[in-house]
Amino acid sequence: MSQIYDRVALIGLGLIASSMAHAIRRGGLAGEIVGTARSAETRDIARELGFCDRVVDSAAEAVKGADLVVLAVPVGAMSAVAAEIAPHLAKGATVTDVGSVKQAVIDAVGPHLSEDLHFIPGHPLAGTEHSGPRSGFAELFDNRWCILVPNGADKDATIRLRKLWEGLGSNVEEMDPEHHDLVLAVTSHTPHLIAYTMVGVADDLRRVTDSEVIKYSAAGFRDFTRIAASDPTMWRDVFLTNKDATLEILGRFTEELFALQRAIRTGDGDALHDYFTHTRAIRRSIIEAGQDTDAPDFGRVGQHEVKKS
Amino acid sequence: MSQIYDRVALIGLGLIASSMAHAIRRGGLAGEIVGTARSAETRDIARELGFCDRVVDSAAEAVKGADLVVLAVPVGAMSAVAAEIAPHLAKGATVTDVGSVKQAVIDAVGPHLSEDLHFIPGHPLAGTEHSGPRSGFAELFDNRWCILVPNGADKDATIRLRKLWEGLGSNVEEMDPEHHDLVLAVTSHTPHLIAYTMVGVADDLRRVTDSEVIKYSAAGFRDFTRIAASDPTMWRDVFLTNKDATLEILGRFTEELFALQRAIRTGDGDALHDYFTHTRAIRRSIIEAGQDTDAPDFGRVGQHEVKKS
Repeated sequence: MSQIYDRVALIGLGLIASSMAHAIRRGGLAGEIVGTARSAETRDIARELGFCDRVVDSAAEAVKGADLVVLAVPVGAMSAVAAEIAPHLAKGATVTDVGSVKQAVIDAVGPHLSEDLHFIPGHPLAGTEHSGPRSGFAELFDNRWCILVPNGADKDATIRLRKLWEGLGSNVEEMDPEHHDLVLAVTSHTPHLIAYTMVGVADDLRRVTDSEVIKYSAAGFRDFTRIAASDPTMWRDVFLTNKDATLEILGRFTEELFALQRAIRTGDGDALHDYFTHTRAIRRSIIEAGQDTDAPDFGRVGQHEVKKS
Repeated sequence: MSQIYDRVALIGLGLIASSMAHAIRRGGLAGEIVGTARSAETRDIARELGFCDRVVDSAAEAVKGADLVVLAVPVGAMSAVAAEIAPHLAKGATVTDVGSVKQAVIDAVGPHLSEDLHFIPGHPLAGTEHSGPRSGFAELFDNRWCILVPNGADKDATIRLRKLWEGLGSNVEEMDPEHHDLVLAVTSHTPHLIAYTMVGVADDLRRVTDSEVIKYSAAGFRDFTRIAASDPTMWRDVFLTNKDATLEILGRFTEELFALQRAIRTGDGDALHDYFTHTRAIRRSIIEAGQDTDAPDFGRVGQHEVKKS
């Protein structure tokens, strides 16, 4: 793999950015990796771990001379970061992000960037329930999708960013921001909200003790807790900034849930059986499409973590 | 491990019963394993795979001379099976089951059994999204919980059945039927219903194609499809027979979901952040309690399947 950018600036050094740094090193994709984070503690950890060539104290300093700038902060912080870095960006640089929603990022970041820059939002569909600079690892993006939202950006700059993500191990797709936000509301945002809710309910129930919930979690509940362990700040911002699509899918969800609830209440076994047979077929399609095996690979990261400890 | 029963009769030869047969063999826990299933096809597969010493054509025949009878059929079929086998049960035999609800099984089976039998309902908290006689394997119950509901049954008979489950690899707990049904409604039944619903919603949405749902399923949705792939007949019966507890937990779930939905709609980021921080702590408790590692072991079975293929 050959070098794609001379200098990559990573703004924010959490799970995604630290994994990008590890994977950029692995592939030799950049001449230099410069990183920064708002918290001094995070910067110190990054210096200790050494996954950046340089860790600097401000975003303004980090972006100087970088031909790729990656905004890897919570969506709610994007606007302030864009305002801070805008006067310091190198002419012709590409600015991208890794946020879970795209229209809100375009609205927050776009107005700060001048015409001589290439703003190409991105979203790697990869993550674990862990967060912070210690949680990163080079394999995070391998065989995962990364969605780019060029939204009219320069073609050559887009091809270059695509090559970076391919070098990081990802399969790359392009999408409109609105469609991205709807697809993610279905496949990620609403499932996360539901998992959070179910875990909250279980903890709330006085007649079933917490220790029982934990003890018998393998019966199905445990998979919800895994989803519900993700970074609270990131997810707060996702729901606040992808409000419309999430509320739409939630509306459909409660509608269907009420229909199943009614089937339970009225003892309509045929309706339940038909529904469950249908959803089982969807699971088969996912396995046949090669998006999962019988062995769940949500655990891939976990296995990595276990190896380390 | 030494022999605990002379002859074990397995009624129904799906995932649980076939796994029991494999694990009984592994531990040398029974002198003879006799199996039967309603469908001729299932019986033929069981004969081909050879995990029973004998496969017979009727439940009445299977239970003759057995000192342990395991009802491993869907909860909705328990009453008819109990009526069929009752006249043929050996005096002093223990009758147990592996159903996911317990009060409904007691109501369905209890009235058919005479006083000289030991009826000790059970529920191994183990399973995969696969079903049928080919899906069984000896390790299914290793380090899983098995809940026994003696409900006043003979102590020695209960100890003996407990020893069998320990020999199958399980940790055994005893519980009242009502409490069992509530705990499972929280940790298993409601999470399954929710997963089924979310998968149904995703499939229903016209503006997001099925192929997109499948392609980007790794973003969170995939864990729901895994849960929602379980046996439709079993789950229909679970919801019909654990109606009250499931509806109670569903009521709490929708209440909390509406509160979060309102927080999204009104942009109450603090409420969302607090909620997500709290659920994250629950996930940590599960890992600390040793009920999960960073690597999900819901995949244990999947790994087994992969090895086979």
